[in-house]
Amino acid sequence: MVGMRGAYGYNDNGNEGGVVVGGGEAEAEIAAMAVLHKVAAPPAQSTASKLKARVKETFFPDDPFRGFKGKPLTTKWVMAVQYLFPILDWVPSYSFSLFKSDLVAGLTIASLAIPQGISYAKLASLPPIIGLYSSFVPPMVYAVLGSSRDLAVGPVSIASLIMGSMLRQAVSPAAEPLLFLQLAFTSTFFAGLVQASLGILRLGFIIDFLSKATLVGFMAGAAIIVSLQQLKALLGIVHFTTEMGLVPVMASVIHHTKEWSWQTILMAVCFLVLLLTARHVSMKWPKLFWVSACAPLACVIVSTLLVFLFKAQKHGISIIGQLKCGLNRPSWDKLLFDPQYLGLTVKTGLVTGIISLTEGVAVGRTFASLKDYQVDGNKEMMAIGLMNIVGSCTSCYVTTGAFSRSAVNHNAGCKTAMSNVIMALTVMVTLLFLMPLFVYTPNVVLGAIIIAAVIGLIDLPAVYNIWKMDKMDFLVCLCAFAGVIFISVQQGLAIAVGISIFRVLLQITRPKMMIQGNIKGTDIYRNLHQYKDAQRVPGFLILTVEAPINFANTNYLNERIKRWIEEESSAGTKQSELHFVILDLSAVPAIDTSGISFLIDLKKSTEKHGLELILVNPTGEVMEKIQRANDAHGHFKSDILYLTTGEAVASLSTFSKMTAP
Amino acid sequence: MVGMRGAYGYNDNGNEGGVVVGGGEAEAEIAAMAVLHKVAAPPAQSTASKLKARVKETFFPDDPFRGFKGKPLTTKWVMAVQYLFPILDWVPSYSFSLFKSDLVAGLTIASLAIPQGISYAKLASLPPIIGLYSSFVPPMVYAVLGSSRDLAVGPVSIASLIMGSMLRQAVSPAAEPLLFLQLAFTSTFFAGLVQASLGILRLGFIIDFLSKATLVGFMAGAAIIVSLQQLKALLGIVHFTTEMGLVPVMASVIHHTKEWSWQTILMAVCFLVLLLTARHVSMKWPKLFWVSACAPLACVIVSTLLVFLFKAQKHGISIIGQLKCGLNRPSWDKLLFDPQYLGLTVKTGLVTGIISLTEGVAVGRTFASLKDYQVDGNKEMMAIGLMNIVGSCTSCYVTTGAFSRSAVNHNAGCKTAMSNVIMALTVMVTLLFLMPLFVYTPNVVLGAIIIAAVIGLIDLPAVYNIWKMDKMDFLVCLCAFAGVIFISVQQGLAIAVGISIFRVLLQITRPKMMIQGNIKGTDIYRNLHQYKDAQRVPGFLILTVEAPINFANTNYLNERIKRWIEEESSAGTKQSELHFVILDLSAVPAIDTSGISFLIDLKKSTEKHGLELILVNPTGEVMEKIQRANDAHGHFKSDILYLTTGEAVASLSTFSKMTAP
Repeated sequence: MVGMRGAYGYNDNGNEGGVVVGGGEAEAEIAAMAVLHKVAAPPAQSTASKLKARVKETFFPDDPFRGFKGKPLTTKWVMAVQYLFPILDWVPSYSFSLFKSDLVAGLTIASLAIPQGISYAKLASLPPIIGLYSSFVPPMVYAVLGSSRDLAVGPVSIASLIMGSMLRQAVSPAAEPLLFLQLAFTSTFFAGLVQASLGILRLGFIIDFLSKATLVGFMAGAAIIVSLQQLKALLGIVHFTTEMGLVPVMASVIHHTKEWSWQTILMAVCFLVLLLTARHVSMKWPKLFWVSACAPLACVIVSTLLVFLFKAQKHGISIIGQLKCGLNRPSWDKLLFDPQYLGLTVKTGLVTGIISLTEGVAVGRTFASLKDYQVDGNKEMMAIGLMNIVGSCTSCYVTTGAFSRSAVNHNAGCKTAMSNVIMALTVMVTLLFLMPLFVYTPNVVLGAIIIAAVIGLIDLPAVYNIWKMDKMDFLVCLCAFAGVIFISVQQGLAIAVGISIFRVLLQITRPKMMIQGNIKGTDIYRNLHQYKDAQRVPGFLILTVEAPINFANTNYLNERIKRWIEEESSAGTKQSELHFVILDLSAVPAIDTSGISFLIDLKKSTEKHGLELILVNPTGEVMEKIQRANDAHGHFKSDILYLTTGEAVASLSTFSKMTAP
Repeated sequence: MVGMRGAYGYNDNGNEGGVVVGGGEAEAEIAAMAVLHKVAAPPAQSTASKLKARVKETFFPDDPFRGFKGKPLTTKWVMAVQYLFPILDWVPSYSFSLFKSDLVAGLTIASLAIPQGISYAKLASLPPIIGLYSSFVPPMVYAVLGSSRDLAVGPVSIASLIMGSMLRQAVSPAAEPLLFLQLAFTSTFFAGLVQASLGILRLGFIIDFLSKATLVGFMAGAAIIVSLQQLKALLGIVHFTTEMGLVPVMASVIHHTKEWSWQTILMAVCFLVLLLTARHVSMKWPKLFWVSACAPLACVIVSTLLVFLFKAQKHGISIIGQLKCGLNRPSWDKLLFDPQYLGLTVKTGLVTGIISLTEGVAVGRTFASLKDYQVDGNKEMMAIGLMNIVGSCTSCYVTTGAFSRSAVNHNAGCKTAMSNVIMALTVMVTLLFLMPLFVYTPNVVLGAIIIAAVIGLIDLPAVYNIWKMDKMDFLVCLCAFAGVIFISVQQGLAIAVGISIFRVLLQITRPKMMIQGNIKGTDIYRNLHQYKDAQRVPGFLILTVEAPINFANTNYLNERIKRWIEEESSAGTKQSELHFVILDLSAVPAIDTSGISFLIDLKKSTEKHGLELILVNPTGEVMEKIQRANDAHGHFKSDILYLTTGEAVASLSTFSKMTAP
């Protein structure tokens, strides 16, 4: 009798459908006889072809060459060149009206890029001119290779901060400026190498492990650390701590109260209020974006004039000083692969590379989805990576697409990457002719510009949203924030990533399992806890597992299911005695050898309790392995496999009635 | 019109059920009107109560105190004491017939434990007597605290090997024997502390990360390393390498060909053949288990007699030498918490503790499931941990339940942990009176005993099974094996664990997604690739996601779904133009803030393409978050939520027909 069950083939009688449960015994019996569907195994595939498919899904989820299929060879070549140089996509159809838009956008971001370039270079303990160099060559390279139309390329605050702090641990920028510069270029080279490799090896998913919660917390923490560093410039302190944490910086600020200069503080307050007001205006009326975009340059001009007119440098206000005119000098001879510093530069390159890549790709994706075009993540990585490799050979340090500058670019109406070229040309003009004008620019105004820029990284609405959505994510966010502020920028990031991954692992180790019940009058089975209308089916324990079954959770599943069986068995009256344990495998995407052993174990132990284990709807890979286990040891006959819970319940209740004494 | 959809409440008309798709338009229309079910959110819970439930599932999946509920206070106390001391479970009802069985089993495992104890201590570079001490106190402690009835406790090969190799890196056992001994006891103390803490903190799931594939590969590798170490004794080499890897050991063996002693080799071959034959006999006829159980002791006796009679120690056969009579001396004064060695002992304790815990718990679980009783993993960890802490204070080194000895115990018919007590008492008698008899025992026979014992750890059928089941698991197994043999025991293990975890993460980063089709004549929707009978529904793209949606995979999901939509849109003829994208969330157990952002993004981008996004059957937590996102921003109106794909398709095809021009 048992052998007969489950042996029905497909029922091709297309006009009948849907099993009715609880709608009368006779009906159920007929229904069970009529509509049993077999669980099919996926078509047999060789290991090699499965491996190929897996590799393709892992590394080429976007299938970048799908357009190439079936095209003639010459077209393929043209397409390949176009793929490598996205500039060819838009240059042929470039028009004067597009150029007008890009010109406006390019000049706007240049007015932002010049003061920010100088400021961020100082944040990285580099000579200010390196910041301008970095706003000249990399944007040109990106314009050729990059696929985003909105990304405005240049140095960014967080990567500058991290590079400065990591290199300062080994070398003092004041004592050995040349060595420090060499290490900065070498780190930039490695950053570019890491970024380009991630793109070429299509390992872009590594940056996905920086979750939104991690980034929100990290950015907010880094913004505060960056702002704290500016207290040196804003208060006019000369002997400032070289440490970064909240505690040592505040201690240093309080300890050096005597060095505070009232002239500097007055200037700081005025320009900070001005910049923040401009920022506020632009946020409130987005059409006035140019107010905040031009404010930094305006502040630089006004403050430089003030210093020049009042000879303020003689009253305790520190100024940038002489800057040399001229374009980027080649710096490949400055790349330093000395084993003594190799570890440091590789590590610095890795951290700054991944951080700046994350920012660049995220910014690119954000604006692409606003304008509804596609940005290829891996191609972006190659573009950003090459841009940094070229940069490291032309006196530039780490650059990427900055959020604030790209937002201005977008608001100013940029159409193509030409706006980056315009910006680079403007910076070039500055480098060639206008450098002497910056002699009297006070450092305090640069500090104010940095603070006004990074304050946007503290995204309180996002934090509130995370708190409301998911308390665990909020914890991750908080840890990233606290780690950055109290320990260090890198370790805060590492802690947050660690917690995120641990959380994912915990989800696997303790997968969700539910008892399902039948929704009255249907053949739908749903979670008893979630649906009040769902009712237990007497004699059945219907469980769903919602995770891959693997080594990390088989022990848990085993214990948990046994406990449920025990509870059910002890609670059951004679009428509703437990006969069947149904395991719905619909939501189990994969199973490993430990998982198969677990199923075999479970089958044996349920049999010892006089119960029968039924498996419902194993998906492709799982079905394949169940079949293999059956071939090897005969553990899973086809009569314990059903396609839906409804069919299993209908068929088995009929069966148990027929065989009941 | 749109507002009307999805607004149907529950249909309580229990006699109707099952939606028919494709069975005539009129029918479908009626069916769609009749049986739409709402997606319910789980009952509202406070964060605290959710956290409590989560913590309970994570740390108390077995709910150890569920028997306590509703019992009077005194009963609770009695139960608590019984929980802490499982000995109280069986002692009150202990009978003479049980004792007879335990006596036979205890004497049998003692005959195995004495030669193995001496051998394994030598493997750990410790004095042989420490091995006997370790077979005396820990079994007594375990008998009181342990909940397994079959576990035979004592030193084991792999933990001995690892402890020896890790401590030898810092201290030479020949040059500083006392310091080495101190470090061994201290490591044992930390091992016990780690084990007991894992039990008390209920972090037992940490050992779950050693998957079956990892363990099979690791054990096989370790068995080979252990056997290689025995070549010193088997060949009679005096100047042997202190390294462990395959390459240096074989180099050392070949380099010292002149030291090979033919007398030793002859003896080695004879006894090895004898032991392996005995092993083979016991495996073929399980009733003759005592043959392999008693063979080691018989070999020791015979070889000792031979050496004594022929004065073989004068012919190049090395012997154990004088051993002192007497029981374990207290060793708490030997525990060394010197900062210089603290790192080493903590690390050694951690590694040996987790390895031996894994073995002990796995062995306990295996035999418990054979005899169908429950072993509480966390309680076992506490028992094994306390046993090692007590052991470290009474001149014992790391002990756990050994697989081979427990199997003998089980086969010999043990009934309770009393067999461990019998074994301990036998070892005690040996320690008190029989130690002088071991003076002439040759080292070569100990080497042969170790090889015969560890050869069982090479589980070729399991390897074959893993190869057939899962190629990726096989790779993990191979890496563990190769890592142990060519790099080092600890690093081989670390590599295998790393690959296992990376694999789990990769599964999350690249989750399975399938296009589903309707199985003809039913309302069942299944994977198009797996079921040939499944057919696409024109106008619909039905996708299932089988993983939690979180930061690690939202980018991938986004790209993959967009690509599918693109392909569908370009392939569709006018008749079958794509209108709806259905995302079946049944198999999505959890979602985080990145996941919610992804859904919102996806909804916006599908709308831009003139498509409608439909979500089917979000489970508890996911539904809750979708609801919260809707409350906050109104992204997910209830008209895009359906309980089953069948209902969604039926309702939407009716709807699109009604509104079509």
